[in-house]
Amino acid sequence: MSEPTTEEKVAEAERAALQLAQCSEAERNAALESIADAIEAHSDEILTANEEDVEEAEELLEKGEYTQALVDRLALSHSKLESIAEMVRSVAGQDDPLGKTLEARRLDEDLELYKQSVPIGVIGTVFESRPDALVQIAALSLKSGNAVILKGGSEASESNRVLYEIIEEATSDLPTGWAQLIEARADVNALLEMDDSVDLLMPRGSSEFVSYIQDNTSIPVLGHTEGVCHVYIDEDADLSMAAEVAHDAKVQYPAACNAAETLLIHESVAANFLPEIVDRYEESGVEMRGDARVRDIVDVDAATDTDWSTEYGDLEISLKIVDSMPEAVDHINEHGSKHTDSIITQDGDTASVFMQGIDSASVFHNASTRFSDGYRYGLGAEVGISTGKTHARGPVGLGGLTTYQYFIEGDGQIVASYSGANPRAFVHEEFDGEWTPGRLSGSRIEQ
Amino acid sequence: MSEPTTEEKVAEAERAALQLAQCSEAERNAALESIADAIEAHSDEILTANEEDVEEAEELLEKGEYTQALVDRLALSHSKLESIAEMVRSVAGQDDPLGKTLEARRLDEDLELYKQSVPIGVIGTVFESRPDALVQIAALSLKSGNAVILKGGSEASESNRVLYEIIEEATSDLPTGWAQLIEARADVNALLEMDDSVDLLMPRGSSEFVSYIQDNTSIPVLGHTEGVCHVYIDEDADLSMAAEVAHDAKVQYPAACNAAETLLIHESVAANFLPEIVDRYEESGVEMRGDARVRDIVDVDAATDTDWSTEYGDLEISLKIVDSMPEAVDHINEHGSKHTDSIITQDGDTASVFMQGIDSASVFHNASTRFSDGYRYGLGAEVGISTGKTHARGPVGLGGLTTYQYFIEGDGQIVASYSGANPRAFVHEEFDGEWTPGRLSGSRIEQ
Repeated sequence: MSEPTTEEKVAEAERAALQLAQCSEAERNAALESIADAIEAHSDEILTANEEDVEEAEELLEKGEYTQALVDRLALSHSKLESIAEMVRSVAGQDDPLGKTLEARRLDEDLELYKQSVPIGVIGTVFESRPDALVQIAALSLKSGNAVILKGGSEASESNRVLYEIIEEATSDLPTGWAQLIEARADVNALLEMDDSVDLLMPRGSSEFVSYIQDNTSIPVLGHTEGVCHVYIDEDADLSMAAEVAHDAKVQYPAACNAAETLLIHESVAANFLPEIVDRYEESGVEMRGDARVRDIVDVDAATDTDWSTEYGDLEISLKIVDSMPEAVDHINEHGSKHTDSIITQDGDTASVFMQGIDSASVFHNASTRFSDGYRYGLGAEVGISTGKTHARGPVGLGGLTTYQYFIEGDGQIVASYSGANPRAFVHEEFDGEWTPGRLSGSRIEQ
Repeated sequence: MSEPTTEEKVAEAERAALQLAQCSEAERNAALESIADAIEAHSDEILTANEEDVEEAEELLEKGEYTQALVDRLALSHSKLESIAEMVRSVAGQDDPLGKTLEARRLDEDLELYKQSVPIGVIGTVFESRPDALVQIAALSLKSGNAVILKGGSEASESNRVLYEIIEEATSDLPTGWAQLIEARADVNALLEMDDSVDLLMPRGSSEFVSYIQDNTSIPVLGHTEGVCHVYIDEDADLSMAAEVAHDAKVQYPAACNAAETLLIHESVAANFLPEIVDRYEESGVEMRGDARVRDIVDVDAATDTDWSTEYGDLEISLKIVDSMPEAVDHINEHGSKHTDSIITQDGDTASVFMQGIDSASVFHNASTRFSDGYRYGLGAEVGISTGKTHARGPVGLGGLTTYQYFIEGDGQIVASYSGANPRAFVHEEFDGEWTPGRLSGSRIEQ
């Protein structure tokens, strides 16, 4: 039997999505438990396949084409598989994002409108080379009732294929084809064209890669490109708090997208604040670049214009003095990436104006930008971080993989009764209640 | 001074959007009242410009290039302007969609997360030739705090220009450039490329036009293409109810996108149901096309395959017999447009399976598809109907023109405290509360 085409795989996923949307929470959770068990049961098989990937990567490492970090990310172990299985079980343990009544409104007597959370449908994912990404994305999609197209990094192709087959076998009770693996780069381009069949794309990877996806598809994209995050130290800042937050925002985990890349400092506190933070950054090995006014106070390298919009993702930061809070707001809106920015001030009014002026998914007052994260926000399993402004924004939980449908329960009502001469009036009355399909006709039959 | 380019207009709108997001509800409502007053005060001026558009359209009508319906839609009058002004006032009277605290969660002591509704930013709109569309779209955008790019039909260019100038002058207290008029067709193509500056597109017009927009931009699109809506008459239907609903769904306003285009009839009730509904449709002048089994029972034209996915938008309907409810579900998912579908049945369990199996924005039980509408749903001002599955779905109210930001109020917290050895634990406790910017620092200062 020849391998199905990407079109055939997506068409099968579309059919499966309609069935999967009707699976109960218990069925979806049982399938997740079954995936976790199968990963543990087949760990030797997975590790054998993974070894092939690692060996190939090591050959490329010797040729200087790969980094050690990439090889490390690729390598699985028994303990890593154990934690992947635990991750799948924790997704099973999350609250069900489906079947929630988001709104209930009585339109008229025996005419009730319900807004109900449902899966989106078919989600296309393209992700980095860590093989645990495949399992995580499949688990999040399944929990939220979505069919998923999985395209991993070619470096992890052997691991991904075995993991995919294990997932497929472990979920044989689910609608066939709910998860599909695609492997060729060309298949990604085919996927980007399928706006009639794929409802959402979730790319993960470099800024350039996510931008490429966004620029080459009409399918809605949930993803983040850059994290150029700022901390602004206001004239009314508690300067010891400011130093703590500025240090944490850069140093605690500099590779994260929510790490700060630029400190903006009000000119009235710059002379007091800069020497202290520069000392602390130097102790932690942070490279600093400042504008001319910063360099009048402390001895750091000169920042160039490109520094203000660079995501270093490393122990590097740029420093700039501003004359006012509004100047900081303008700088952030111009150079930032709408991700996360923070103001340090003891003045609530200043905080208010700053926070409402910044067009970023997350804006903080007296807290480190590093809090911008689904786990820390209490969203449960994190699907990703979105720098888009529609659908889901900022850290996205399982709810970001849902949409809604409107359901009406009626008793034969027609619109003609509500128009023309002497029309009935709508009631439009919100009420607390869960959608019970067939509630009204059911009660009528019982009478 | 030369006319600014589309790029310059959009850039000005982007700057204005940041300011407009900070305008209070009172400021936005005052500007809306001012627009309504100005439309009344300048009605002669508007009607003079409108006459030019109408005259040109009438010339094209004589040449057979326009329809009378188009000319009628174009023509304004004193009473029409009065109702446009009233529409603007009613938008002002809607609940404010902005500044709502959608979620409040305590992450830890003195560390509070708020999810707050905010404007989306810059909305690009391309709409049909009715000049009232310009005023309506500008009013909805302003109410929701969004800057707007307005592109109307060329048929209404004189009316649109005068209306735009009146709106611009009436809202001189708002950030300059919050509304922008573009006039050339080429400017639309420029707009479609500006995914860095335009946050949402709202096209209105023919299915072909909306599809063209969707296929040619990476900007999220809020709009609807087709409405191929179905009524399924189940074996357990109350047949007199079924006839009422099927009649209303087609006849009450056949040009609407939520009018039914196909009736699906369970084979066990077809012989009883078909003669009655065919009589009623014939009385109302509805043209009917049926499949072979329908034509065994009643005398109607033969349906072809294209009938099943055609939006007639007129007094035409296709009729088909199905062997089971699941066959109806499959037919609808295959041929429908994910808009609105209805089941008529007295069996609640059948309704439940049908409703959960249909992938449409609105699914009804024992009610006419014509209820699928923002006003009837009680959403207030209707922004449009969306057949997309992300962001907003189905009838969209002002909330569809908003997104959200996460705000954290802290007291200097850093992430390092919550990681490493002996980490603090998050509390993650939902609470009822409105975001008060600077609440925590404010209280500390007061102590």
